[in-house]
Amino acid sequence: MSVKERRPPFYLGIDLGGTNVKSGVVDDDGRSLSSVSLETHASRGPEAGVATLAEAGREAVEASGLSWGEIAGVGLGTPGTMDIPAGMLLEPPNLPGWDHFPVRDRLAEVLRARTILQNDANAAAYGEYWAGAGRGVRSLVLFTMGTGIGGGIVEDGRIIEGRNSHGGECGHIIIQMENGRQCGCGGYGHLEAYASATALVKRAIEALEQSDESTALRRHLAAGTLTARSINEASLANDPLAARLMRETAHYLAVGAVCVMHTINPDLVLFGGGMSNAGPEFIDLIREGVKRMAFPLPASHTKIDYATLGGDAGYIGAAGCARMAFGADSGG
Amino acid sequence: MSVKERRPPFYLGIDLGGTNVKSGVVDDDGRSLSSVSLETHASRGPEAGVATLAEAGREAVEASGLSWGEIAGVGLGTPGTMDIPAGMLLEPPNLPGWDHFPVRDRLAEVLRARTILQNDANAAAYGEYWAGAGRGVRSLVLFTMGTGIGGGIVEDGRIIEGRNSHGGECGHIIIQMENGRQCGCGGYGHLEAYASATALVKRAIEALEQSDESTALRRHLAAGTLTARSINEASLANDPLAARLMRETAHYLAVGAVCVMHTINPDLVLFGGGMSNAGPEFIDLIREGVKRMAFPLPASHTKIDYATLGGDAGYIGAAGCARMAFGADSGG
Repeated sequence: MSVKERRPPFYLGIDLGGTNVKSGVVDDDGRSLSSVSLETHASRGPEAGVATLAEAGREAVEASGLSWGEIAGVGLGTPGTMDIPAGMLLEPPNLPGWDHFPVRDRLAEVLRARTILQNDANAAAYGEYWAGAGRGVRSLVLFTMGTGIGGGIVEDGRIIEGRNSHGGECGHIIIQMENGRQCGCGGYGHLEAYASATALVKRAIEALEQSDESTALRRHLAAGTLTARSINEASLANDPLAARLMRETAHYLAVGAVCVMHTINPDLVLFGGGMSNAGPEFIDLIREGVKRMAFPLPASHTKIDYATLGGDAGYIGAAGCARMAFGADSGG
Repeated sequence: MSVKERRPPFYLGIDLGGTNVKSGVVDDDGRSLSSVSLETHASRGPEAGVATLAEAGREAVEASGLSWGEIAGVGLGTPGTMDIPAGMLLEPPNLPGWDHFPVRDRLAEVLRARTILQNDANAAAYGEYWAGAGRGVRSLVLFTMGTGIGGGIVEDGRIIEGRNSHGGECGHIIIQMENGRQCGCGGYGHLEAYASATALVKRAIEALEQSDESTALRRHLAAGTLTARSINEASLANDPLAARLMRETAHYLAVGAVCVMHTINPDLVLFGGGMSNAGPEFIDLIREGVKRMAFPLPASHTKIDYATLGGDAGYIGAAGCARMAFGADSGG
């Protein structure tokens, strides 16, 4: 990208995950100018972590060819739980030892740059809204499927953060209140307990235990390669058990989509995370479920699609949040 | 109320129901100055209906002692389906023959006053936010329990209307995706199919058919007095079956509350409609369910309560919507 195409002001986005820190500089149109990934080493604790966040940020600025003076603000996305307005982590399950750590202000001190904090899934949803599959819509809900199911809601251009920074925890709506599966969070009947990548593998193992059916999945289980990806590939190769598991997963996700369509009624429902590589058959199954279960108007008007920014959504969205907080239109 | 206590500007709110039209003049603090109720006679069609709406409005203005010149705008709440921004009814199930009727603009013509349209349940939620149980909160979700379960969401002072005016249809989230009860709307497993007043009576009849248990409910069934109210009264009088039915209803409503707490994460979840007279035991059961099922932070911070405006919430909220649209702060 030539310098001419870059549109100032520029923002630095940093996405803190349990395993990696991703960072990049993003221009005023949501285009990424650089992308850096470092290992988090979360167990080394929060002060070492802030040093890593700062290092990832510095490398991203350097890789962009810009100077620090051209960076109008920093956005940091982190996994929950947190107090977004206070810039505090509370008790984040994936960052042991980081409890009640004022991550926003510590990073701002180290980088000497104004910094805002956002939930990582909210940031990803904002990234898709600003620069991804949601460009041009007014509102969207993002479900991100991985170990768990994260979520974020953008409504009329604003993130629904919620009273306790628990807005958009869409993986933890209850879709099966009687005899529901137990969720990773301890609750019962949550969407995540049915439709996350982890839940898909668990349901596959249960199905294998309950039948003698010949299936590629049994070989994957024996070989230690039974994953959401290998189940999807087996489904695409017409393995009957794998196909049934993927159909059921799509149905569960459609139930989740209908629930947000009947509350938020967004323009767009996006599915991101690992499953966003599952291909057109899978998203079509979700769409069919939505058409079958939603009210006629949202069923025909709500777009259902995959997210498009992949692993960059988090830092791009965090940069977008910095733009909201510190940009020309923000009054900041 | 003395004239001195009235705070201008004043707004006229009109709440169109399938049975009655309620209307009142409301001051800038959300205080009702007058309240009028007329029969809707919905079957006479939309033009006769507009005449009734206008008559209810005129009577409310007259009863308030104000002149029309003092009314800064009119807010109309109607049952769905509708296109809120266009001011159009679409295919409202409770207003047969009113399909695709431009009710906002027709009423504005007849009253010669600027008029906005809002979904009736959204208006009620806004009424509670502005002038009822939600005074001072930033966000709330209202569930109204009657024949069905309506809902409305106010987030940061704004109603979530949604892409197809289907925001806040909280009675139609899916809480039981497998073997779910059929809802009045035709869908399966919706909250409304479990926890509306209608569903409560239906569940009572099923329980009576399935056992020989001695219960006051059997006498109510025989006498034609089996209603949500009589079931609640029997529960308060320690009838075991009635108590179990009320406990289950509270559990279902708690599931609904948890779902909105894990998506919107509002300050306050309100329960209105007929069931808001069920007494402190019932709301306590809902609170216990929420504490058991919600994430710790929203479980301890979200207020769960009854709505307080009763049948006035609709017209007060509609007046509040007119204030949002036409008031001094609106730029309108």
